[in-house]
Amino acid sequence: MSKSRLEAFSDGVLAIAITLLVIEIHPPELHPGETLAQALWAQWPSYLAYLVSFLTIGVIWLNHHRVFTQVARVDGPLLLLNLNLLLWTGLIPFPTAVVAEHLHGGGEAARTAAALYCGVLLLTSVAFGALFAWVTRDDRLLGRRPPAEVIRAARRRFMLGLVVYAAALALSWVSAPLALVLCGLMALYYAFDQASVPAASEPDAQPPTRRSA
Amino acid sequence: MSKSRLEAFSDGVLAIAITLLVIEIHPPELHPGETLAQALWAQWPSYLAYLVSFLTIGVIWLNHHRVFTQVARVDGPLLLLNLNLLLWTGLIPFPTAVVAEHLHGGGEAARTAAALYCGVLLLTSVAFGALFAWVTRDDRLLGRRPPAEVIRAARRRFMLGLVVYAAALALSWVSAPLALVLCGLMALYYAFDQASVPAASEPDAQPPTRRSA
Amino acid sequence: MSKSRLEAFSDGVLAIAITLLVIEIHPPELHPGETLAQALWAQWPSYLAYLVSFLTIGVIWLNHHRVFTQVARVDGPLLLLNLNLLLWTGLIPFPTAVVAEHLHGGGEAARTAAALYCGVLLLTSVAFGALFAWVTRDDRLLGRRPPAEVIRAARRRFMLGLVVYAAALALSWVSAPLALVLCGLMALYYAFDQASVPAASEPDAQPPTRRSA
Amino acid sequence: MSKSRLEAFSDGVLAIAITLLVIEIHPPELHPGETLAQALWAQWPSYLAYLVSFLTIGVIWLNHHRVFTQVARVDGPLLLLNLNLLLWTGLIPFPTAVVAEHLHGGGEAARTAAALYCGVLLLTSVAFGALFAWVTRDDRLLGRRPPAEVIRAARRRFMLGLVVYAAALALSWVSAPLALVLCGLMALYYAFDQASVPAASEPDAQPPTRRSA
Repeated sequence: MSKSRLEAFSDGVLAIAITLLVIEIHPPELHPGETLAQALWAQWPSYLAYLVSFLTIGVIWLNHHRVFTQVARVDGPLLLLNLNLLLWTGLIPFPTAVVAEHLHGGGEAARTAAALYCGVLLLTSVAFGALFAWVTRDDRLLGRRPPAEVIRAARRRFMLGLVVYAAALALSWVSAPLALVLCGLMALYYAFDQASVPAASEPDAQPPTRRSA
Repeated sequence: MSKSRLEAFSDGVLAIAITLLVIEIHPPELHPGETLAQALWAQWPSYLAYLVSFLTIGVIWLNHHRVFTQVARVDGPLLLLNLNLLLWTGLIPFPTAVVAEHLHGGGEAARTAAALYCGVLLLTSVAFGALFAWVTRDDRLLGRRPPAEVIRAARRRFMLGLVVYAAALALSWVSAPLALVLCGLMALYYAFDQASVPAASEPDAQPPTRRSA
Repeated sequence: MSKSRLEAFSDGVLAIAITLLVIEIHPPELHPGETLAQALWAQWPSYLAYLVSFLTIGVIWLNHHRVFTQVARVDGPLLLLNLNLLLWTGLIPFPTAVVAEHLHGGGEAARTAAALYCGVLLLTSVAFGALFAWVTRDDRLLGRRPPAEVIRAARRRFMLGLVVYAAALALSWVSAPLALVLCGLMALYYAFDQASVPAASEPDAQPPTRRSA
Repeated sequence: MSKSRLEAFSDGVLAIAITLLVIEIHPPELHPGETLAQALWAQWPSYLAYLVSFLTIGVIWLNHHRVFTQVARVDGPLLLLNLNLLLWTGLIPFPTAVVAEHLHGGGEAARTAAALYCGVLLLTSVAFGALFAWVTRDDRLLGRRPPAEVIRAARRRFMLGLVVYAAALALSWVSAPLALVLCGLMALYYAFDQASVPAASEPDAQPPTRRSA
């Protein structure tokens, strides 16, 4: 299995999952005496869920790409761990739709919807952590091993994600919207963190490493 | 982050968003005494919205490609600005569906639907303008800086888009269908404008620049 | 605009359109006293429409690829003609869904559904013919001009398509299922015709031509 | 037809089919007195079907990739056999949706749904077997013929698939859920079998073979 086809397939699944999110935002049905503007406002959970899920999948894509720039060789377990990550990421549109439908009503339904949402993100996070742990376990799969402190920092970020998503899961029972907002903040943090890495430190900038795919 | 994976992911999202538009055109339900032909004609807002949105996303793709032929280096803010552009472009099927469902009825619903549609296109346009402004801010991200008048002309075209989409948004309150038609004319103008650039002036024709991705 | 990104975007749209066809085959709702097996059989127009549309888009992809192996240079009109082809091809899931829903009932609805279907295929065929005519108009866009008899044979095949789809459109008023079957036979003919070209005559086999993209 | 575009198109269709599976998991409608948690649990056939179908399409992708690493030349029949494989694989979301809707009720509907599901997987398996048989029929399409025992082992795996899917089809009449579980075990077996092949034996690791695409 070449790295380039693994990346192309993963990019395809992530691009489709992120774009499918929109079809869970349905045009509202108008109740008697309701204006379309009111009906559109009442759908705010759909927009919030779209935003948080879009950011989350976008960050998974950024992070997936970053991890694979380090990978020089793909083995069997990595194939399976990657399929496992795609399985959970590809599922995200489902809890997104559940949240969009049930967050507004409050009560048990809103709490359960938020807990499902946070739970799927937590499992996605576990799946990504497992993939990362396998890749950085030793030097067999890496082209050029990054410095130890870089790997430690990346592991801390994965741990942070696990903790935050678990906290969001717990928070679902207190306030469903806040749990979603916490997931969104996590994605924003990851996005800005990813974006702050100086481009010069990317192995991509070195043609021989890039072409070894 | 390599430019080629950024382009591949963006192409994927744009190709999916443009193709998903069709699933918002539903086969009509027949009312008693209505022929299928009549029911199909009555769905004209769906076809108009499909056409305008298809042209708009098609033009975003053409333009995205043109901008990135100039880019030699991708930094963090560009990643985020690109995700932001994809977020708004990926949302377009939603206002398209709202317009398809509510334009026909007229009144507040038609006006609100058209305003939502024009508003999302306006925000997409702002997102693209921000990306372009970042890319052309200085020479750091560019492979070979285009002549100043070329950049000025491109900025004028972005400004024109902002003005026209804002005008379409205002026009929504007068005539919802006309607002849509104005958005369609804007996309047509961009399409023919893109198509009129002589191929010889494309950096793409120069292998070294293209391969620097 | 490089040929490779034009091909990648077109491949994306065609792959998505062909795969979206399946979501128009809905799990049947059971009426009282009806078994699932009966309900599944009653949906035969959905399967027929899936099959014919899948073959048709598959053949468009094969043919698109074949045409672009000859193309060495992309100009503005070709970009627009290609977007126009994708617009019609991307629309195919809609008439497919209309046929799937209305073919079974017979009468005006079945005839109109089949006519819509054949009409969209006819317009797709016109769009492809226009693209092909532009590409082969003179030598400006071609890497290595194919022999004149090859181009004449390709033009005859396009003409044949126009005639057959127009005949299928007319046949819709006589028998809607037969009109669909005629479209399917046309796609099958194209598929076997494409497949019978000896691989050795493909410009693809010559690295310099392929790399000129 | 170049191998690389055939692979890219196939990857696209497989990535989309695997990601579309999620839109068949609908947010549950709440009956009076039912909690969302109960409604979500009641949807277990949707999750089971998603899991089995995801694994199955994932394994088809892995296997497709493996077969094509050996292919050096694409001929007409291979094009058609590949389209045929994509036709059946692209159909998988439909029986997945039927199973998700009808497995829970039991009785004839559950049995028929499971039989449809297993039947489509059986036909997909036949389609893949036909493609593999054509590729390995003689040396014309292969870059470097794998050792005879490798091909024999691969043929045994295809035969095993046919037998297991036929057994699952028969098992549908006894227990619909068990039939699904058997299909899932088959996919798991294939996944671990694929993953156990040492990376070193991949032709991909040899740049000249890989570039001959």
